[in-house]
Amino acid sequence: MSVVVLAHEQFPDRAKTALGLLRYGDREVVAVLDRDNAGDRVRDHVPDVQDAPIVASMADAPDCDELVIGIAPIGGGFEESWRPDVRTAMERGCDVTAGLHYFLAEDDEFATLAERHDCTLTEVRRPPDDLTVAEGTASQVDAAVVTTVGTDCSTGKMTTAYALRDAARERGVDAAVVPTGQTGIMIDGAGIAIDRTVSDFAAGAVERMIHERADHDLLLVEGQGALAHPAYSGVTLAILHGSQPDALLMTHVAGREVVHGFEDFALPPVDEYARLYESVAAPVRETSVVAGALNTSHLDPDAARAAVEGYADDLGTPAVDPVRDDPGPVLDAILDAVDSSA
Amino acid sequence: MSVVVLAHEQFPDRAKTALGLLRYGDREVVAVLDRDNAGDRVRDHVPDVQDAPIVASMADAPDCDELVIGIAPIGGGFEESWRPDVRTAMERGCDVTAGLHYFLAEDDEFATLAERHDCTLTEVRRPPDDLTVAEGTASQVDAAVVTTVGTDCSTGKMTTAYALRDAARERGVDAAVVPTGQTGIMIDGAGIAIDRTVSDFAAGAVERMIHERADHDLLLVEGQGALAHPAYSGVTLAILHGSQPDALLMTHVAGREVVHGFEDFALPPVDEYARLYESVAAPVRETSVVAGALNTSHLDPDAARAAVEGYADDLGTPAVDPVRDDPGPVLDAILDAVDSSA
Repeated sequence: MSVVVLAHEQFPDRAKTALGLLRYGDREVVAVLDRDNAGDRVRDHVPDVQDAPIVASMADAPDCDELVIGIAPIGGGFEESWRPDVRTAMERGCDVTAGLHYFLAEDDEFATLAERHDCTLTEVRRPPDDLTVAEGTASQVDAAVVTTVGTDCSTGKMTTAYALRDAARERGVDAAVVPTGQTGIMIDGAGIAIDRTVSDFAAGAVERMIHERADHDLLLVEGQGALAHPAYSGVTLAILHGSQPDALLMTHVAGREVVHGFEDFALPPVDEYARLYESVAAPVRETSVVAGALNTSHLDPDAARAAVEGYADDLGTPAVDPVRDDPGPVLDAILDAVDSSA
Repeated sequence: MSVVVLAHEQFPDRAKTALGLLRYGDREVVAVLDRDNAGDRVRDHVPDVQDAPIVASMADAPDCDELVIGIAPIGGGFEESWRPDVRTAMERGCDVTAGLHYFLAEDDEFATLAERHDCTLTEVRRPPDDLTVAEGTASQVDAAVVTTVGTDCSTGKMTTAYALRDAARERGVDAAVVPTGQTGIMIDGAGIAIDRTVSDFAAGAVERMIHERADHDLLLVEGQGALAHPAYSGVTLAILHGSQPDALLMTHVAGREVVHGFEDFALPPVDEYARLYESVAAPVRETSVVAGALNTSHLDPDAARAAVEGYADDLGTPAVDPVRDDPGPVLDAILDAVDSSA
């Protein structure tokens, strides 16, 4: 599977999905579309990901199986300047994947082209229409299940899951992520956006994804939201109970003390927060927080190191910043925990 | 507002919505449609609810503003034998409300009749299409907010909310229920089925309903599911955090020890369960379980009385069976709690 990623005018810093595909994707990225940086290569901008040429348009891109819209404007609409690229891709028979509020299949031109050229249009925000309520069976799979939970939104739950997947694979463990949000779904090419499901089916959607991936040895479930979040806690708990994890990893942003965007709400202290996750999980699945991941991207290296050490002390578990540090110590803790629970 | 309730062949025992409308509805029920009991009156079958004639068809019913489909076959489909009643109602200009999986507005005949006779078709399972994420503001309303939570599904959360509403009104307190499920929505004629919303918007939908009802003195939020339920806990927590309650009441079924339909999952002991609700609520809103309601419908009176006493002891709060008992002691505890938190 080869993909082209559309990231016009936003590569690399505002193209989270494009970077995710380059850093963690299993598929070969054969080109990035960015009219501002055409002629460069990915590695000219981001050193530690798979390399690819940056080209101005789909007409300049090599053959591929799929075009992924790797950016989203505020509001999630379709940017008309992308239309020629999407048109060209479909005329070449490529599938197209997007995570916009605007559904490509409801665009007359794209619907016609998809039919004519036999292209699959995938909208990662749209959940499958045959979801059901959970049956409480996720823990029955042979795979070890580890869920990343957080003290808040945007604390690194997805990034940590992929970093641990890659570290596990380097040790020969057959690991996979269970993607629950649109960036993860685009990276994996599969998954369900749990926050878009009917609320009654959210836990069932997670359970279904775990059964579909049960032939791996280690499943890293991408959590969403946070258990003490005033708006998103329902999604968080549906993932926690739907995944019935053998172990939890808790993510946090160094120094964050209140819920982002909801500044009247203080975050519980991290050790208390970890105990809260464990006590709510327990009636469905006894589990515990065995590791931590800290986002220190806003700190200098010395402050980051101190923050990670402080976080590990507070949690009473190993912790790393999965972007700066070798995730080895955290992976060790996770593999120990799931071995002993197996 | 006057309503006719369709309950063919299921009145009274399998007509939960019809009974709810008769027992708790603010609108006058002018007839019940039940071809099996035509000629009887409601009070011939159910003594303690508003009375109405039972008639065989809509053609025999008096004038009304609205026809409510008060029963649902397994699977939630539309029963073709109801078609003449729905047709007659619309030809007489009545609105029609249903909670089926089958949407009346998607039926060609009903859509045509609704347009011709200016009837509103309300599908209580379908959430509004302009829901948003919660802003964390429910606690800012002047009304006192009490949320009914449970140890499991079908433990009496809706019934208790309505029983307390009526007891509060008898004392002159302007109380209202915030309906979150389809029976409550039909009883009130308004509300949002939280289990059918997009999961990201579930807490926001509850918050919106609280703001819409903020001019009452006491709001009784109908909880759904249970915090330790393997499938529905996400909906439960969205309601708990979205409603930011001043106090909680916990419902339970006497003798139930495992999750109904999920028998591998034991219910936590009731006192532990109450503490779990409180600790998960706390980061968003400090609150506590101040009363209990026990469903003892399967017990004889002596056993029921002993069970309620035992439940009150376990919880350390007043408790009643809201169907058998005067809810006074529980209402006292709730009014004391919300007064002291105001």
